[in-house]
Amino acid sequence: MSKRPATLIVLDRNKRESLQTQLAVSLKELVQARVLAPGAAVPSSRDLAGDLRISRNTVIQAYDRLIGEGYLEPSARRGLFVSESLTEKILSRTGLSNASTTVSRFVFQQNSEKLGMPVPFRPCQPDVRLFPLALWNRMRTRALRSYGTHLLHYQSELTLGFPSLRRTLATYLRESRGVQCDWHQVAITTGSQQALYLLAHLLLRPESRVAMEDPGYLGARFAWQRTGARLIPVSIDAEGMRLPPDKRFSAELVYTTPSRQFPTGACLSLSRRLSLVEFAARTNAWIIEDDYDSEFRYSRPPLPSLQSLDSSGRVIYIGSMSKVLFPSLRIGYVVLPASLVQEFTALRSVLDDHGPLIDQATLAQFIDAGAFYSHIRRSRRAYGERLQTFIESASKLLLPLSFPYIDGGMNLTGFLDSTEDDRECSDRLKSIGIEIPALSQYSLRPTRPGLVFGFTAFEQRTTQESMKRVALAFQGRRKGHRGEPAH
Amino acid sequence: MSKRPATLIVLDRNKRESLQTQLAVSLKELVQARVLAPGAAVPSSRDLAGDLRISRNTVIQAYDRLIGEGYLEPSARRGLFVSESLTEKILSRTGLSNASTTVSRFVFQQNSEKLGMPVPFRPCQPDVRLFPLALWNRMRTRALRSYGTHLLHYQSELTLGFPSLRRTLATYLRESRGVQCDWHQVAITTGSQQALYLLAHLLLRPESRVAMEDPGYLGARFAWQRTGARLIPVSIDAEGMRLPPDKRFSAELVYTTPSRQFPTGACLSLSRRLSLVEFAARTNAWIIEDDYDSEFRYSRPPLPSLQSLDSSGRVIYIGSMSKVLFPSLRIGYVVLPASLVQEFTALRSVLDDHGPLIDQATLAQFIDAGAFYSHIRRSRRAYGERLQTFIESASKLLLPLSFPYIDGGMNLTGFLDSTEDDRECSDRLKSIGIEIPALSQYSLRPTRPGLVFGFTAFEQRTTQESMKRVALAFQGRRKGHRGEPAH
Repeated sequence: MSKRPATLIVLDRNKRESLQTQLAVSLKELVQARVLAPGAAVPSSRDLAGDLRISRNTVIQAYDRLIGEGYLEPSARRGLFVSESLTEKILSRTGLSNASTTVSRFVFQQNSEKLGMPVPFRPCQPDVRLFPLALWNRMRTRALRSYGTHLLHYQSELTLGFPSLRRTLATYLRESRGVQCDWHQVAITTGSQQALYLLAHLLLRPESRVAMEDPGYLGARFAWQRTGARLIPVSIDAEGMRLPPDKRFSAELVYTTPSRQFPTGACLSLSRRLSLVEFAARTNAWIIEDDYDSEFRYSRPPLPSLQSLDSSGRVIYIGSMSKVLFPSLRIGYVVLPASLVQEFTALRSVLDDHGPLIDQATLAQFIDAGAFYSHIRRSRRAYGERLQTFIESASKLLLPLSFPYIDGGMNLTGFLDSTEDDRECSDRLKSIGIEIPALSQYSLRPTRPGLVFGFTAFEQRTTQESMKRVALAFQGRRKGHRGEPAH
Repeated sequence: MSKRPATLIVLDRNKRESLQTQLAVSLKELVQARVLAPGAAVPSSRDLAGDLRISRNTVIQAYDRLIGEGYLEPSARRGLFVSESLTEKILSRTGLSNASTTVSRFVFQQNSEKLGMPVPFRPCQPDVRLFPLALWNRMRTRALRSYGTHLLHYQSELTLGFPSLRRTLATYLRESRGVQCDWHQVAITTGSQQALYLLAHLLLRPESRVAMEDPGYLGARFAWQRTGARLIPVSIDAEGMRLPPDKRFSAELVYTTPSRQFPTGACLSLSRRLSLVEFAARTNAWIIEDDYDSEFRYSRPPLPSLQSLDSSGRVIYIGSMSKVLFPSLRIGYVVLPASLVQEFTALRSVLDDHGPLIDQATLAQFIDAGAFYSHIRRSRRAYGERLQTFIESASKLLLPLSFPYIDGGMNLTGFLDSTEDDRECSDRLKSIGIEIPALSQYSLRPTRPGLVFGFTAFEQRTTQESMKRVALAFQGRRKGHRGEPAH
């Protein structure tokens, strides 16, 4: 061939793509631009490699790829040539100017993943730097060694998750939270969000009545709303959610976060727990107990889970590994009443069948080896210290906030004076790079204003410095208010 | 203390659980059985370690775990003692006989994971032994090194997947299948099943009309049925799906597998493709193009994707890594028309937010490094040989089956004589350990009987031997039929 395509190909070793990929893309562009027309022979791999000063193997691999994609065809007589059966459609479609002899290039963003760390004081964020990733990776290797390539296969009947993980979790939940269950009732989900979605679609119909804590968890609210259910906001006080005392009160479903109400932090008292369980048994309502961060307690031992108090099988227990391990793992779980297992499985199998298995097998190893407990212990210690730092900084700086519930969890809600506008506060903080959602953002009805601080992901110094900026923002505003002439 | 709990504790180094876990469980059982009553002191870690002949560290870790779970409490004066605030509920709930002094044990199944390899001739199964797992693991390490702990965090705005993977896939699909898209249109899903579920819920209402290939893919059918949509079966012939020629024919959604119709294997002809795209443009119908195994072609180059032929933005393209890489990875993808991106994101975020990120970052590395293409090439070569073996074995053994579509994919449908009952055939084969689904199982209406063989997961010898067993089953039956006296 007369034209030497090598003169039109520019490869760049600093690019994110391999030389092989760059070469394959360039060759396709040359085909699309008709520099290499259908039926034309392409240079031998030896020639092209020489022209481009790259290894011959790279050229062979790029050619192989183009053969596979139908751009090139091998011929015993002529070597490799551009496929004549390439349709006009493929040739004209790829958005390149047709007759151009200079080859346009896809522009890739370099270093384009702007993955962020949580900004102070974003709620519900674990400090993933505490996570023993190297140990996790060893457990992954161990799981792959134990199960071999079997772990890569499609496995029927794993819709509810990897059996050894379900068993291990059942034991953990029985022991640590008193949850009454057999492992067949434990289902692994893609985060707790998927459990909420699935339960919403199993248990609710349009116009179903869902009682939920107000303020409450938005992920849950959105799941109920998708079904067309009606939301019944339930107030929170120091003893947690307070169902209306009216005996005629009814709901198909009650959603609650009893260990530490999200976002206020109130703990559901034992007497309220017992009456909630009694309500469910009496009215045949479902209760969803979202125990999202019960692992993090810094002083007194936890109250028993609602599920452990229930003898009528109406409490559904949900938990998550997002906070105990790391969020991007996307593993949550739900303990289902036996009566729901079959329907739940059927819906899950249509929804996405099941989640990735290697992670599930790894997690089972991680728990069985005791690493799970050590990590909880280590995180709890670190977070307990951070909680102290947080409270000390806030009280030293005389923030105009009161923090009534400071005994656990990952977040602290600071209540503002009732005349304040918490969204305005939150927006102002956001403008100086501080992320503290307004309590009213989580509310269905007007609520006492407040700000929801997370404290677990931030080291002592970050907390202290960020707290000073929060204090300055509050002071600046008060000065501004005072200095503002009334006209 | 007088009683030495060590005499009641039996640890077993051969068990799946670590000694620490076994010890923690045993101690809890002793508490629950009141051998260690609330307020009682527990032995020092040194004493207990000595009695049990285990390391003191193991005891300390088990104690730490029980402190964390509220069973034990440290006291400056008395060392460690059983928590007095443990409620009766926790004590009585765990299913143990209360006053027993011998400790009952949880019975764990040993080696209980019966992970199976696919049985011949299960359809749609890649041979995961071909997968370069070591290389994949290196790419995972590389991804973790590039992004560090950022990859473990919750990341907002990743509902549609990890950006570098979405970009890489957009390039791959543009180049290999002519798919017209910007990377913002590419969404990563938990297998292609989740894409089907999400699209069903976005695009269909009860009584919506869905035209789908008959016989067709069950995972898709189940997704449509969940919405209450009405299914309109569309026949298949040698040119693939044949929409009714009646100009008044309408459907909100058409589902098709044009590259290789599942399960028959027919390829949608170019003229049918063009008229399908024209139908969608004219009637404003959506088309879902499920390109589930287009990577596996053994002779002629692929026809352009439907999506590449469409200029009205009505074709939604779906693909999967389950067959190209490995099924338990659970990564699929969908290329959305720009008009659907926002709604799709909103539904996905309520459903489960997003899938695990480490796998997605690993896959992006795997593709960028060229390993993806090498693996496709290697698999294609192996599967091409297996296809030959399959066809040779079937024809040598004179199976009473005709295989009209043998140019690609992972499955071959063998049509039976129209008087045969394919379910009865399939059941009989199942009884001798051969798994070949009946074609009628995939059908909405009575269909020509057939059997759907997968050939990709089985080595030459397995195929040859299994085929002999299939042939024997057919012969046995015919002999049986002949020998049966007519009475």
